[in-house]
Amino acid sequence: MSPSNTLEVDADRLWATIDRSAEIGRFRDTGLRRLALSPEDKQMRDLFVGWAREAGCAIEVDPVGNIFARRPGTDPSLAPVAIGSHLDTQICGGRYDGVLGVMCGLEAIRTLNDRGIKTRRPIEVIVWTNEEGARFSPPLMGSLAFAHKLPAAQALDTRDDAGLRLGDELARIGYVGKAPLGNRPLDCYFELHIEQAPHLDRGGCDVGIVVGGYKTLAMRIDIHGETSHSGGTPMADRRNALVGAGYLIAGVNDVGLAYATEHGRTTTPRIECFPNLPGIVPEHVRLIVDFRHPDPAGFERMQADIKRAIAAAEAKARVTIEVTEGWSWGTSLFAPECIELLKGTAVELGIPYREMLSQAGHDAYAVAELAPTVMIFTPCRDGISHNTNEEIDRARTLPGANLLLNAAFKRANR
Amino acid sequence: MSPSNTLEVDADRLWATIDRSAEIGRFRDTGLRRLALSPEDKQMRDLFVGWAREAGCAIEVDPVGNIFARRPGTDPSLAPVAIGSHLDTQICGGRYDGVLGVMCGLEAIRTLNDRGIKTRRPIEVIVWTNEEGARFSPPLMGSLAFAHKLPAAQALDTRDDAGLRLGDELARIGYVGKAPLGNRPLDCYFELHIEQAPHLDRGGCDVGIVVGGYKTLAMRIDIHGETSHSGGTPMADRRNALVGAGYLIAGVNDVGLAYATEHGRTTTPRIECFPNLPGIVPEHVRLIVDFRHPDPAGFERMQADIKRAIAAAEAKARVTIEVTEGWSWGTSLFAPECIELLKGTAVELGIPYREMLSQAGHDAYAVAELAPTVMIFTPCRDGISHNTNEEIDRARTLPGANLLLNAAFKRANR
Repeated sequence: MSPSNTLEVDADRLWATIDRSAEIGRFRDTGLRRLALSPEDKQMRDLFVGWAREAGCAIEVDPVGNIFARRPGTDPSLAPVAIGSHLDTQICGGRYDGVLGVMCGLEAIRTLNDRGIKTRRPIEVIVWTNEEGARFSPPLMGSLAFAHKLPAAQALDTRDDAGLRLGDELARIGYVGKAPLGNRPLDCYFELHIEQAPHLDRGGCDVGIVVGGYKTLAMRIDIHGETSHSGGTPMADRRNALVGAGYLIAGVNDVGLAYATEHGRTTTPRIECFPNLPGIVPEHVRLIVDFRHPDPAGFERMQADIKRAIAAAEAKARVTIEVTEGWSWGTSLFAPECIELLKGTAVELGIPYREMLSQAGHDAYAVAELAPTVMIFTPCRDGISHNTNEEIDRARTLPGANLLLNAAFKRANR
Repeated sequence: MSPSNTLEVDADRLWATIDRSAEIGRFRDTGLRRLALSPEDKQMRDLFVGWAREAGCAIEVDPVGNIFARRPGTDPSLAPVAIGSHLDTQICGGRYDGVLGVMCGLEAIRTLNDRGIKTRRPIEVIVWTNEEGARFSPPLMGSLAFAHKLPAAQALDTRDDAGLRLGDELARIGYVGKAPLGNRPLDCYFELHIEQAPHLDRGGCDVGIVVGGYKTLAMRIDIHGETSHSGGTPMADRRNALVGAGYLIAGVNDVGLAYATEHGRTTTPRIECFPNLPGIVPEHVRLIVDFRHPDPAGFERMQADIKRAIAAAEAKARVTIEVTEGWSWGTSLFAPECIELLKGTAVELGIPYREMLSQAGHDAYAVAELAPTVMIFTPCRDGISHNTNEEIDRARTLPGANLLLNAAFKRANR
């Protein structure tokens, strides 16, 4: 392919679809709250399905609500080139996280339609259910179930904080489908996503070719103390689980700060405390703590330091601490053949790129176990994401969208 | 009064009433969960009212559900001697906290009945609504409303975590009364309570005459950060409200430990966090923190150190912290005339006692603003309270019960 026969997305149409999607679940003026399987999620799914049908796609839905919109190829015996991401958002989310990747996939199909171009392989745009995990835990649920890393029955039995069951909510919005769960041959999988970190934005580069992920471990941590009177109990006799949590959160954050120059990260996003009432020393706290590092050896050093911080909190607060390892992923996720395809295509298109690691979890991690997979990152302002102020520079996003389109087109004629 | 004409409670009867009360709301074998205005609270109130009527008392209830059981005196123009405490418990509470004081009051009346003794003044046993604050906040609600320190309308409009309104719950259990709220002349007020600290138990002394309280301040603390992605956001860019809470809890506990030798205490009993979800850095945490010290000058030093700990947490986590002062009380609470009465009576009865300060909050603090007030503490094992393992030595409790009986009897003939 020479520059003269490269393809280009219709930018106005792409941004019109994004602007329309940003009306659904609007929250705090500039943001979105479009929780998985909410009425807003249904509305967004219906809109996407309508657009995909208008673009000539056949729609299939699997039992956990993942949506597959297929543009046929000329050889029906061949597995499709897949492009996917998610339509749900965080509870205080932005207008680009997830939906941008889905709409760039749709825009690729529309662009091929505009030019009357047929491909040998089908091209399939996939919407994964409940990527965020903001309403139903764990995150990446649809892709994990698809990859048989999470039993479907467990996914369907998950309940939100109001006690509503995921399977019932899925039925309520009409997205329990009959397509087989997983066992769906994919030639390859592309996912375009905003970076959710500031390196592209601050580095003045518009495209990240994602060659792997930060090594990451998320842990559930239970801290056991003992209830007692908040006034009468001498300090030396106390076993306050919340104080244990305080020392642990502070110690784990200190580890994150110590590794910041080498891009290590620690986060405590969630706490539950019981009885959590004035006048009584808490007996139980449950935390989620995660940490990540770009380099496996650095990860090991961090892990050792975090273990020491947990032991120090345990001793100082006279509590007992149980660590359950939750989910983890490694550094080598993505297929060399797909990475090389993106690099070569970027060179042909004259698009500067940076090779990088993903710091966040993505559906692509689960799909990578089934099919050759790669991700494209586009810049977001100051790396702000999972925040209603998430913002992008649209002109700086188009190179990624065009790279996705051209790479998928090439691969679809393989 | 000489030792020959002192009175003695019927120990078997007292412990039978306590054992019966411990059947209502039993929790985790040895403990109680008898939350304010629950079906268990109603059952316990009904049982007490029945017993009081059998003992010849007239019952009145006020609009916030405080119960007044009056044994008449020979001069109806005189204000009663009051003995009170509470029947509700913590969510993981014990069998003696509160109910012991009420049943010792009832036992005093029964003992006088046994002996056919009339008194000039009435003797009134008072049950205060929602002392614990475990279901409806704040604690000490009934006595605060009685003392006009908390507007009755505000108390009645309080909601529990399930959204149920206190006024509705009070009506549901049939304890909205017509007795005027407050404005009830009391000659004096006695409250017997387990110490909820280990000093009597470990010191081998059976009676504490409470001459005041630890100076105490409870604060509501709001910590404001910013949501962001738990993976992509560099450590230096984060404003994690939960990390701010971690540093604050750790720092405030360090202050408590530093003041432990002079009996200072700090407690963080409660935390709320938003959005409190995996993958997203929290933007808001609300804490309750309290601290107390036996000496006002020590309290001031502690307060300065706590302010420094809060400022350090604010800087380290890059959050903003707002402190709202909640409730506080001072050291000089109880009436010298009542303290002297108890001391003289103890000497007459040959009961060794210790003068002490209360470390916990009690309904007596509110009543002390209206009438001469004093408290009697009895030992509890290892000071364990607000815990299902709360336990007492019954033989070591009787001296306090007899001191209460004889002091109230003397005062009722004043």
